[in-house]
Amino acid sequence: MSSDLRISADRLLRRLEELAVHGDSGDGGVCRLAASDEDRAARDQFRAWLQDLGCELAIDPIGNIFGRMPGRRPGPPVMTGSHLDTVTTGGRLDGAYGVLAGLEVLATLRDAGITPACDLSVAAFTNEEGVRFTPDMMGSLVLAGGYPLADALSRQDSAGKTLGEELQRIGYAGAAPMESLRPGCFVELHIEQGPVLEAEGLQVAAVENLQGISWTQVEIRGQANHAGTTPMSLRRDAGYVAGSLARFLRELADDMGPPQVATCGRIELEPNVINVIPRRALVTVDLRNVVEDRLQEAEARLQSWLEQAAVEEGVEIESEILARFEPVDFHQEVVGVIEREARSLGLASRRMTSGAGHDAQMMARICPAAMIFVPSVAGVSHSPRETSLEADLVAGANLLLHSMLSLAESGVAGTP
Amino acid sequence: MSSDLRISADRLLRRLEELAVHGDSGDGGVCRLAASDEDRAARDQFRAWLQDLGCELAIDPIGNIFGRMPGRRPGPPVMTGSHLDTVTTGGRLDGAYGVLAGLEVLATLRDAGITPACDLSVAAFTNEEGVRFTPDMMGSLVLAGGYPLADALSRQDSAGKTLGEELQRIGYAGAAPMESLRPGCFVELHIEQGPVLEAEGLQVAAVENLQGISWTQVEIRGQANHAGTTPMSLRRDAGYVAGSLARFLRELADDMGPPQVATCGRIELEPNVINVIPRRALVTVDLRNVVEDRLQEAEARLQSWLEQAAVEEGVEIESEILARFEPVDFHQEVVGVIEREARSLGLASRRMTSGAGHDAQMMARICPAAMIFVPSVAGVSHSPRETSLEADLVAGANLLLHSMLSLAESGVAGTP
Repeated sequence: MSSDLRISADRLLRRLEELAVHGDSGDGGVCRLAASDEDRAARDQFRAWLQDLGCELAIDPIGNIFGRMPGRRPGPPVMTGSHLDTVTTGGRLDGAYGVLAGLEVLATLRDAGITPACDLSVAAFTNEEGVRFTPDMMGSLVLAGGYPLADALSRQDSAGKTLGEELQRIGYAGAAPMESLRPGCFVELHIEQGPVLEAEGLQVAAVENLQGISWTQVEIRGQANHAGTTPMSLRRDAGYVAGSLARFLRELADDMGPPQVATCGRIELEPNVINVIPRRALVTVDLRNVVEDRLQEAEARLQSWLEQAAVEEGVEIESEILARFEPVDFHQEVVGVIEREARSLGLASRRMTSGAGHDAQMMARICPAAMIFVPSVAGVSHSPRETSLEADLVAGANLLLHSMLSLAESGVAGTP
Repeated sequence: MSSDLRISADRLLRRLEELAVHGDSGDGGVCRLAASDEDRAARDQFRAWLQDLGCELAIDPIGNIFGRMPGRRPGPPVMTGSHLDTVTTGGRLDGAYGVLAGLEVLATLRDAGITPACDLSVAAFTNEEGVRFTPDMMGSLVLAGGYPLADALSRQDSAGKTLGEELQRIGYAGAAPMESLRPGCFVELHIEQGPVLEAEGLQVAAVENLQGISWTQVEIRGQANHAGTTPMSLRRDAGYVAGSLARFLRELADDMGPPQVATCGRIELEPNVINVIPRRALVTVDLRNVVEDRLQEAEARLQSWLEQAAVEEGVEIESEILARFEPVDFHQEVVGVIEREARSLGLASRRMTSGAGHDAQMMARICPAAMIFVPSVAGVSHSPRETSLEADLVAGANLLLHSMLSLAESGVAGTP
């Protein structure tokens, strides 16, 4: 029986260290932007490990890398994967953990001489973070047919270089046809990037859905005036409206209740000096919910608040949608498999929602998909301080192993 | 009788134009920082006009310039004056109007062959704005004995140059002994820099007091976290507290009622990006009131709010006093003279409070003092758009003329 099978903790943790060398920022973090020299080095390392395993290697035209292990029956693979790129002040785990845990699953099966019921594959998707080239989750989005390949390749970074040129330069503009690479089902392992699992003392989560995101930039135009000589009743204070908006967002989220969240992450005042009433404010609004109707309700309440604030303070307010993604429901059968396998492994788990975007949401467009989360220490991510307990990283990889084996046995990925 | 005496509107307005050449910012405004080349040019022009008038000229060690016209009896002068320096994005009137109107008063008397009852003098005080060298109102503060001369001369600008060096360089490090220059009483003419007179359709104000100022910088330290994955209940959001503080300040001022004003002019968030809960916020607080007890009450309520916010949101809050000036009550007799002369001249007037700091508040430490305000169009100042109606500028100068004559006749400035 394979139920006692466990991944090699030493190998997984060692490879995480080895990969973090590429883009090491010297403060415990990693800066490995998509299609950079650092990204190339990490890709080369990942490819070498896949080749050592004897995997069938494929690189598609958007630069996604796939390693495939044949199973006992033909057909689309049970796929796992994540990304190797990071944000500018990134950590060692966001993305890399999911890719290397997938590699570790294949290595564990190879070492044990086990042939899975169907093909398994591990993917490293291009440009998940979207920092150097927008939009984010680009490689998986293109693979899922949600964004034209030509458009993606022509996206430019701030220096004017296109992703297509950069993939050519680093040797990752592949030719493998995307149709042959698409999975029968997909499960992604990732750090939580939030504080919930740690706060509840749990080791893993079966991620059943992913929040919809609504990003709005609000511009408030009032009138600059002297802070000492302008009576309160005659003010048209863009800073006051900006502050009130930050407060309103908290009240909105509290009033709607979980899972609604609302954040004001950015405020810019002009002229931004102590004794001048601000003439202009830029404020960003981040609204998220797992239920589309509720997210729309939050957006409507925001707009209504802005209209009222404009009238009450005599300011002009314009808002612009910066990004909008509907919530994603993951596949109940895949979530169920993850839950069952967690129970078999004796791991304390819960179902939860992903508050961040992930490649799995793009795969969910074309196949049954779900995710596994492991705890983030203090909920920190996108930071050199991003870390997780080694025991949790190992537990997550073992859960990925058994979830993939179970999915291969089941009918979720196609005819068994 | 001199009651029909009027200043020369043409000369006053022409000289305002001529002075604005020095530091002309090309957009209708003026940039004439203290002890700069532009300040030297304006000082040279003012000095030349005083010399043309045959005034007794004096420059003291802090660079204040005085022009004095002898009266019929000896003793300290009835003084007027203001400043020639501007803020970086200054206008043509703030300061310059008061200095040139004072010059115009002396010129009018000379033209009419009138010898006032006592000496009159007009002062251009050094570095009122405090932009290049802190503190502000420096020249009048030093003259009033409120700040040691040596300390003032050793203040450095951002390039490391001292005020003393710069006064030497531009030729305005004078030697006139300050004791001999101090006035018997003082009246300053200035633009309102606020919207009240214009809103009420008045031409002048007799300024009876000046707000106390309390400037506080508040630092809020929370925890950066992902805007999507961090439940509202687990947040320690420095941005939310910053926004709430801006809103609280409005509520505080509304609750205390006029003349209390409260302004949040500056907010800086870190990292200041749309999808990260801010870990740190800097917020400035500007509180003003004409009653010291009430200003202290506002400060106490701010501190109490900050303490409660720190507990409720789990953030650390530190506040630092950046500046603190008690309110100033001007001299009732001087205010009364201004009011009577405004009535005689048929000018619609009111008493009011100054929301900004002025040289007159420093003179009020050593002699009876008050101010005259004329309306600012749209209440705008410290801006190239700063302007006042010509008729109001002329009316203000005529009120200054007759107020100074009346003060010279009265006993306010000393034994008549």
